[in-house]
Amino acid sequence: MTADTLLDLARSLPDIEMDSSAAIRAAYGSDQGPVLEQMSPLAVLWARSVEEVQEILRWASRTGTTVVPRGAGTGVSGGAHATAGCIVLSLERMNRILEIRPDDELAVVEPGVINADLNKAAGEHGLMYAPDPASYRISTVGGNVATNAGGLRCAKYGVTRDSVLALDVVLADGTLVSTGHQTFKGVAGYDLTALFTGSEGTLGIVVGITVRLRYQPVKTCTVAGFFPDIESAAAGVLAVGRARVQPAIMELLDGPTMAALDAVHGSDLRSRGGALLLIQTDGYGAEAEAAVVRAALAALGGTVSLEDNEEALALVDLRRHSRGDAVHTEVRVGEDVAVPRSGLVTYIAELNRMAGRHQVRLKVVAHAGDGNVHPTFWVDAAEGSAGVERLDAALDESISVALAMGGTITGEHGVGQFKLRWLGQEQQAEVQELQRQIKSVFDPAGILNPGKAILP
Amino acid sequence: MTADTLLDLARSLPDIEMDSSAAIRAAYGSDQGPVLEQMSPLAVLWARSVEEVQEILRWASRTGTTVVPRGAGTGVSGGAHATAGCIVLSLERMNRILEIRPDDELAVVEPGVINADLNKAAGEHGLMYAPDPASYRISTVGGNVATNAGGLRCAKYGVTRDSVLALDVVLADGTLVSTGHQTFKGVAGYDLTALFTGSEGTLGIVVGITVRLRYQPVKTCTVAGFFPDIESAAAGVLAVGRARVQPAIMELLDGPTMAALDAVHGSDLRSRGGALLLIQTDGYGAEAEAAVVRAALAALGGTVSLEDNEEALALVDLRRHSRGDAVHTEVRVGEDVAVPRSGLVTYIAELNRMAGRHQVRLKVVAHAGDGNVHPTFWVDAAEGSAGVERLDAALDESISVALAMGGTITGEHGVGQFKLRWLGQEQQAEVQELQRQIKSVFDPAGILNPGKAILP
Repeated sequence: MTADTLLDLARSLPDIEMDSSAAIRAAYGSDQGPVLEQMSPLAVLWARSVEEVQEILRWASRTGTTVVPRGAGTGVSGGAHATAGCIVLSLERMNRILEIRPDDELAVVEPGVINADLNKAAGEHGLMYAPDPASYRISTVGGNVATNAGGLRCAKYGVTRDSVLALDVVLADGTLVSTGHQTFKGVAGYDLTALFTGSEGTLGIVVGITVRLRYQPVKTCTVAGFFPDIESAAAGVLAVGRARVQPAIMELLDGPTMAALDAVHGSDLRSRGGALLLIQTDGYGAEAEAAVVRAALAALGGTVSLEDNEEALALVDLRRHSRGDAVHTEVRVGEDVAVPRSGLVTYIAELNRMAGRHQVRLKVVAHAGDGNVHPTFWVDAAEGSAGVERLDAALDESISVALAMGGTITGEHGVGQFKLRWLGQEQQAEVQELQRQIKSVFDPAGILNPGKAILP
Repeated sequence: MTADTLLDLARSLPDIEMDSSAAIRAAYGSDQGPVLEQMSPLAVLWARSVEEVQEILRWASRTGTTVVPRGAGTGVSGGAHATAGCIVLSLERMNRILEIRPDDELAVVEPGVINADLNKAAGEHGLMYAPDPASYRISTVGGNVATNAGGLRCAKYGVTRDSVLALDVVLADGTLVSTGHQTFKGVAGYDLTALFTGSEGTLGIVVGITVRLRYQPVKTCTVAGFFPDIESAAAGVLAVGRARVQPAIMELLDGPTMAALDAVHGSDLRSRGGALLLIQTDGYGAEAEAAVVRAALAALGGTVSLEDNEEALALVDLRRHSRGDAVHTEVRVGEDVAVPRSGLVTYIAELNRMAGRHQVRLKVVAHAGDGNVHPTFWVDAAEGSAGVERLDAALDESISVALAMGGTITGEHGVGQFKLRWLGQEQQAEVQELQRQIKSVFDPAGILNPGKAILP
């Protein structure tokens, strides 16, 4: 059947660029999320236009072939992992910035545009595309839309959904629909734009994106607050809130994260404290806000420095790389829970308790302004299955504790394939059923990215 | 059948407060939107708890009775107009603020809480609920959610959807579902919270709302720029954008609006210019931003005054009342289109051309920061149907011109019943069909607010 399908594919879509070599199928078989079962697509297809995406989906519908859409493959929840018998539809060649309209403060892009490239183009007009996942240099805007990606700046500027005004989407049967509006506000009908955003390619293939652009800040100030421990640093988050300053960026790094960064980048963060609260204010009020932040943090016992621009950028850059590279001698899993802001200290203390109890290693960074916590747990690979079992137990506990505090299993990475195991703990059965029915409206045959985002 | 249904209602729900007197049925038969055909509900029911809403919907499902939910009835698109054989379900008695959690920067409220009351309660903690429709003193948060209401401050702080984190919703069959999260970020599953927001009570009855609160600004500055004409005032909108200032409020008033305000409130706006751009900056950068705004407007020939606090508040307050009261000697319709920001000048010029061509009166206010334009057209009631026909022709043209410019038929008021006639011009047939199918998922029997929000 596989060979038949492949033959049919090649003959039916003679003009579509595709590759079914083992190397390509392996390279496009997974994203950066944990792999539960390594699968390989039948073939990888690269669409270059909306029409090609429509052709591919018409073929997939006709043959009942499942389609896994893919941007840059930088997701960390397995939303772009291949599934049995699928084709991978790469949007990376659809990478044109179609329009930047400075006075309308919006841009229209194809899904394969790299986030940083859009920002560079917008920057020429003094504008920026605000959502900045840590992967912004390599991830695509389409992928960001698929996961409703967050990032550092969303403390102030919101997540991807808050910047997406309109979408062009190809449905499972090849139908092209346009949702949303080219205006900042618009309430005509149900908000399909928001529904598609974060739906991880399970409702349709996003082929065109209109985004709102924001003003590049006229001024940016970065305050680094080094604290003896994570508790006092986390208290700083609430203190800044009580001082009514809305930072553009408010990141929390624990000691092990600082040590890991020092080891890789030769920095000296760990020697300066046991935890770091890194805060950036921006705009016309940046300096006034930074002064308030400094006072608030100093009052809590932080060693506060207003970094000059080069150091500041280096620190923020370090933070963006704090997930670290995969190390083959370790089994690592990064998490993405969010908790109500006031629970940050308690939750991070709980994480440390869990790490001790399950004998796993732990480091924690948080988009603290949003209560979005990224713990990374790891064990030595040499331990084999015993280590993985302890790792899994720690992960499970980190999720259930977050949920008990009113949190969510995923703040910004998406459910993908990997977090399905916890989704039932967060979503009541009736909500799961509604989601399945919505899926059926858009994709009745279930060919779009099956086994992702919602519970079967 | 009506009498039977009423009898069944009274017997089946003995503990629910209800009234079927002619006076109450008339009072609750319409909201503030234009009435196409005056209908009267069988009865008005006031729910006092989630359980009562569930009971009512179970009864409605069993008997096939349609339900029109209603907050304060301040909507202007007829979203709460009674339809044939319906009951009106008023949520106004469910008006408790259940929680304000200052450090989590969120509040949990029942749907009947008045927007201003929530703001007052949040203000005690230095926080605010940002969405501020002109009706904020009398409209409910539940109604604001139903229409995804905008307001003045959403230029900076976003619309209702941007502040809604989680919803409790009773579905047509009485099932209670909870969507969203108590955290600022969360991407687990499809965004049902956004789907319900703005769905005008056609998908479910919102019975609980968790909203994000924002910081009350430490400082507010108001700049009034009086211009000789609307073109130069509208150019000021783009100039402020190019100066990279994001005002909290940016309102544009034309000469007839100023004259109308002067007549009612005894102000002297019209003598100061032919158009007014009213801009408020807020936060730590408010003064620096106001200075930039003043310079930008003065460079365009505006007569710019930095108002002191009392005058400033009075001006903004005047603007909030600029829709004016209904006058029985006139037939008036207020519109709510949005256009891309750069089209403001062109669009307003077109509106004036239309008014001349169709011989109708016109005044225009705009949430200019969002490109959201509220023209009000009117004719003398004494003219009878001839006047109404010209009014309708002007309305139709105002819509088609906005759509041709890439705009939308409704920026913040909702489609309701009144704007259905234009919805097909904005939404392609495939999108209309998707919306109908989504409606069927949530309300298969079609008992929830039929004939509103989406095309049949």
